[in-house]
Amino acid sequence: MLVRLKLGTPESVARDILSRLRMAGLAVHRTAHEGRIRIAAVGDLSAVDWAEVARWEGVDGAEPLKRPFKLASRAFHPHDTIVSVGRADIGSDQIVLMAGPCSIEGETQAFTIAEAVARAGATVMRGGAYKPRTSPYAFQGLGEEGLKLLRRAADAFGLAVVSEVMDSQQVPLLARYADILQIGARNMQNYALLREVGHADKPVLLKRGLASTIEEWLLSAEHIMAQGNSQVILCERGIRTFETYTRNTLDLNAVPVVKELSHLPIVVDPSHGVGIRDKVAPMARAAVAAGADGLIIEVHHDPDRALSDGPQSLYPEQFTELVQQIRTIAEVVGRRV
Amino acid sequence: MLVRLKLGTPESVARDILSRLRMAGLAVHRTAHEGRIRIAAVGDLSAVDWAEVARWEGVDGAEPLKRPFKLASRAFHPHDTIVSVGRADIGSDQIVLMAGPCSIEGETQAFTIAEAVARAGATVMRGGAYKPRTSPYAFQGLGEEGLKLLRRAADAFGLAVVSEVMDSQQVPLLARYADILQIGARNMQNYALLREVGHADKPVLLKRGLASTIEEWLLSAEHIMAQGNSQVILCERGIRTFETYTRNTLDLNAVPVVKELSHLPIVVDPSHGVGIRDKVAPMARAAVAAGADGLIIEVHHDPDRALSDGPQSLYPEQFTELVQQIRTIAEVVGRRV
Amino acid sequence: MLVRLKLGTPESVARDILSRLRMAGLAVHRTAHEGRIRIAAVGDLSAVDWAEVARWEGVDGAEPLKRPFKLASRAFHPHDTIVSVGRADIGSDQIVLMAGPCSIEGETQAFTIAEAVARAGATVMRGGAYKPRTSPYAFQGLGEEGLKLLRRAADAFGLAVVSEVMDSQQVPLLARYADILQIGARNMQNYALLREVGHADKPVLLKRGLASTIEEWLLSAEHIMAQGNSQVILCERGIRTFETYTRNTLDLNAVPVVKELSHLPIVVDPSHGVGIRDKVAPMARAAVAAGADGLIIEVHHDPDRALSDGPQSLYPEQFTELVQQIRTIAEVVGRRV
Amino acid sequence: MLVRLKLGTPESVARDILSRLRMAGLAVHRTAHEGRIRIAAVGDLSAVDWAEVARWEGVDGAEPLKRPFKLASRAFHPHDTIVSVGRADIGSDQIVLMAGPCSIEGETQAFTIAEAVARAGATVMRGGAYKPRTSPYAFQGLGEEGLKLLRRAADAFGLAVVSEVMDSQQVPLLARYADILQIGARNMQNYALLREVGHADKPVLLKRGLASTIEEWLLSAEHIMAQGNSQVILCERGIRTFETYTRNTLDLNAVPVVKELSHLPIVVDPSHGVGIRDKVAPMARAAVAAGADGLIIEVHHDPDRALSDGPQSLYPEQFTELVQQIRTIAEVVGRRV
Repeated sequence: MLVRLKLGTPESVARDILSRLRMAGLAVHRTAHEGRIRIAAVGDLSAVDWAEVARWEGVDGAEPLKRPFKLASRAFHPHDTIVSVGRADIGSDQIVLMAGPCSIEGETQAFTIAEAVARAGATVMRGGAYKPRTSPYAFQGLGEEGLKLLRRAADAFGLAVVSEVMDSQQVPLLARYADILQIGARNMQNYALLREVGHADKPVLLKRGLASTIEEWLLSAEHIMAQGNSQVILCERGIRTFETYTRNTLDLNAVPVVKELSHLPIVVDPSHGVGIRDKVAPMARAAVAAGADGLIIEVHHDPDRALSDGPQSLYPEQFTELVQQIRTIAEVVGRRV
Repeated sequence: MLVRLKLGTPESVARDILSRLRMAGLAVHRTAHEGRIRIAAVGDLSAVDWAEVARWEGVDGAEPLKRPFKLASRAFHPHDTIVSVGRADIGSDQIVLMAGPCSIEGETQAFTIAEAVARAGATVMRGGAYKPRTSPYAFQGLGEEGLKLLRRAADAFGLAVVSEVMDSQQVPLLARYADILQIGARNMQNYALLREVGHADKPVLLKRGLASTIEEWLLSAEHIMAQGNSQVILCERGIRTFETYTRNTLDLNAVPVVKELSHLPIVVDPSHGVGIRDKVAPMARAAVAAGADGLIIEVHHDPDRALSDGPQSLYPEQFTELVQQIRTIAEVVGRRV
Repeated sequence: MLVRLKLGTPESVARDILSRLRMAGLAVHRTAHEGRIRIAAVGDLSAVDWAEVARWEGVDGAEPLKRPFKLASRAFHPHDTIVSVGRADIGSDQIVLMAGPCSIEGETQAFTIAEAVARAGATVMRGGAYKPRTSPYAFQGLGEEGLKLLRRAADAFGLAVVSEVMDSQQVPLLARYADILQIGARNMQNYALLREVGHADKPVLLKRGLASTIEEWLLSAEHIMAQGNSQVILCERGIRTFETYTRNTLDLNAVPVVKELSHLPIVVDPSHGVGIRDKVAPMARAAVAAGADGLIIEVHHDPDRALSDGPQSLYPEQFTELVQQIRTIAEVVGRRV
Repeated sequence: MLVRLKLGTPESVARDILSRLRMAGLAVHRTAHEGRIRIAAVGDLSAVDWAEVARWEGVDGAEPLKRPFKLASRAFHPHDTIVSVGRADIGSDQIVLMAGPCSIEGETQAFTIAEAVARAGATVMRGGAYKPRTSPYAFQGLGEEGLKLLRRAADAFGLAVVSEVMDSQQVPLLARYADILQIGARNMQNYALLREVGHADKPVLLKRGLASTIEEWLLSAEHIMAQGNSQVILCERGIRTFETYTRNTLDLNAVPVVKELSHLPIVVDPSHGVGIRDKVAPMARAAVAAGADGLIIEVHHDPDRALSDGPQSLYPEQFTELVQQIRTIAEVVGRRV
């Protein structure tokens, strides 16, 4: 239920409304829009007489939030959410560039790539220390050692850090090193993990599951937000289709659809989305033209020897060239890099 | 098999090679690349000693065409194919705009829309006279009457015409009125129809099937080309995925993939691809940023009363605005409208 | 709209009702259920005052047929439709076995297989003379020569014939040789072809498209039935999924679902459905356990040398053994072979 | 790598072989087949000279395990694995019936259903205490209270217990109450959870992910087995397809395919697989006809008031009737209930 308060409702009245709704057994979340407080009440709505609530002091109206996702919906929060991390304002008019290797492999690798992507214009460094691998026998990441290297390399070049957390027990560890906690596609519906990052004091980058609908994705964001963490960045990274030529099928339709349904920022990962180096740039350009708030791209200075995802990693100079093209396309859609 | 002739091989020698291959029971197709004749020989290749052929006078080399599609492959024909119709050079540096209503509904409608799209920069008018409808009880199109109106409206504003042919028996009729014969997604593997348009003296716009792989699509192009018609334009129009919010999922990955695998031009239909009016422009921009050779877009001056596909049709002024944006993005990728 | 007449309504009154509905611009189809005439009226229903119709002499009630498919729905025709061809009563308590090679390849092959499958209990012989092939360079079938062989082989062993028709122009030819006209999966939405077989005086076996929903499939049946041919047999033959180990994914869920939604018989093709010889028998058993009305199975005496689909063809002795198992399972579900 | 020892190799020699392989940095797993010890060695195989190993005392041969899953493959372990829990021998000639409510809702519900399913022939009781729900606002299960009720109800009627574990931190708790730890479809690739149950001393029922290939599913089993727990039961529970009439599409093809690729038992969940009560029995019968080792079925005595999945739950008497049909079909495929 969306409860809209009147302009100028005193804070004391707002608090009173919130506590009355809480006492009715509902969870409440507040936001503001054009100076007016808005409250989302979720839970067993049948216990409350909403026509009565609409007549409470300070209340302008009470109406159902019709979509199954409530806090993630534009109906609750009409303005774009901006998630700020370091120099990146994700969801603003800035196209945010996140770049780095698939996995952190060592000090030289981490620093070389950090420097290259920072120079090209990236503000966030990506890099995996814990890798979800289909086979138990594949390289699983360097673990905490990798996180330390990632943090140091990013700090050396003024970059924020995004890295994947694979399990609810890992959240405190990841939160120590990363600025943004990444939830991988395979864990999009790992609800225990979503709950845990929902209690963390860090933004969350939530990748779309391989075969998820947009509604299921937004409901996973809702799982995080329902715990109190509203700093969620959605990340489209390709869905599974019948096509075998590409690794996945990057679904750019999701960009304008998410922009309509939700206030959350959406970034696009063309590296996993197509999985072929020379298709990354066209799809990155297309993502920005479609309205994405940012890109997350795999860059490696020596992809032939990368321990994971080499074939889809850009060379640093390709990334630099891509950023130039993005700059111009950003202008067409009223954005900037 | 690809047989490459030497630079400067006289035509008489080339003809001799062609007829010797034909006598071996093979079908042969020729093209030229950088002044050198190239021959694709298809059929039962085991009947020929290819090492021997490589030693024939005029032959520079003979090597397998490894992909299942041969004539459609870049290996056979390295340069981009350009299909020219009226003022449109599809596959050149020009981004070709095809626009018009889903169905031709009457004279006023056809002329009003033709004028609007021509003014905005379209060079080809689209419009259905025979409509493939899931239900036998839905509007099936005006038939030949619709074709006549479409032709007259297009002619009045200097536009070429593309319209769908649904059956092998309809090809002569469609060829009388249309400049480009459109094969719909549902007929992508209607091989009798592909064979028939393969004999027609008109370019063919081949829509991708709803659940087709890119390889199957190119093999359907091959069915047409094997009959002698090499004027094939591929059209990505959205694939079926699990998403229910959009009508289909426009697969822009197909654009750079087709560009690598084939020399055929590829245009994108964002109207069917997403099926929601306000998502058409973002996806059209993205298509051009991804490298598409053109767009085919549904435009209707009164979409609320359209007999088919109203909800996905742009208003003429939206189309005009979109063309402006496309102009700038085209420049980024070295193209022009 | 479904118009139910009263028990004992004289034929003259029924005819009067039909002609009044026709005069209102509707197409009408009649059936009978428990001695009562039922009329499906399709077309522009808004032109008729249905409350008024409900009061016409002889009319018991008039109610909407809510599903998009009308004639194919159980609401119109509550009893199971039985399609009788030779000794086969498809849709009755008999599990009908259709078997034979993928393609007719020659006289010995056709007669050898016909004899084997007839002995094992098949009543219908399958065999392709016109083959839809993804590649234009693959074996396309023997054409009319193949049809002649198929007919002679089937006749020699008392079998009926089912064979695929690929194009609207081929219908008269196929109708000359085959007892059942097969529409392949790729042509499920070839509406010109559906219309043509809708006018033929032969039962139609309509395969489900690779990525079709059950509703789309039943709407394709409706395209046939709307032309007057109600002898439609549905055939589940596997859908496309992400699985690569099997050729397709046989969807047995479709069996109980179709049985609820429609009165049309449904047979299952496990050969194309899985595409691997040793998986055909388990899936055939499962199909009967799920309630299928019959099976269509590829059998070849020398599958290693088959010109198409060898790897999924059963040896005659495997087919014989399978029929034994089917007999027992049929009893569990109240059927017989 | 598969290292096969000679018949009669003394245990001391076998241990020596195992420790030499371990010293080469490999993980080793042993099994026996027809009296011969077999060793799977996994890890960096390049460090070992396998031709040399083949000449070691006691070694009969060393050959690559070609599939990406090793311990789960039939090549490593040719005989069927039987997982024994209470009176259930899953993977033997017994068709094991697991039944119970979707969620444990209270004492009366748990005991009523336990009694009913035990009487009908079930040997394992299913029931969720922690429920993965797409929406954070849906009923999430009774938690440990639910587990206690489930355990008591099952014990009262001599049933074993299977219940879902949603997070790595929950494994010890679940292991206290359940005999079989269930991994849900959404967690099939939650590798931290798989690792944790890989260390538990309980069998694991691993549901197939909604859009997983069979290979990915077996690789998830491999994640568990690589930790030392070889008691894995696979559970097919429906995949996502384009069909909207059913909740999911139960993929029975997976049954014979898994039986070929792996020695692990496979049970089928038709309740989630189709999601419609009256389609559960046909698909359950089909599953057994296709060769499944067991069924897991939702049964509820008052499904209209169930807190989750009511519409797909069988009434106890429907379950009883189904078990009768299963008995007969089991005989056809050489099994028994």
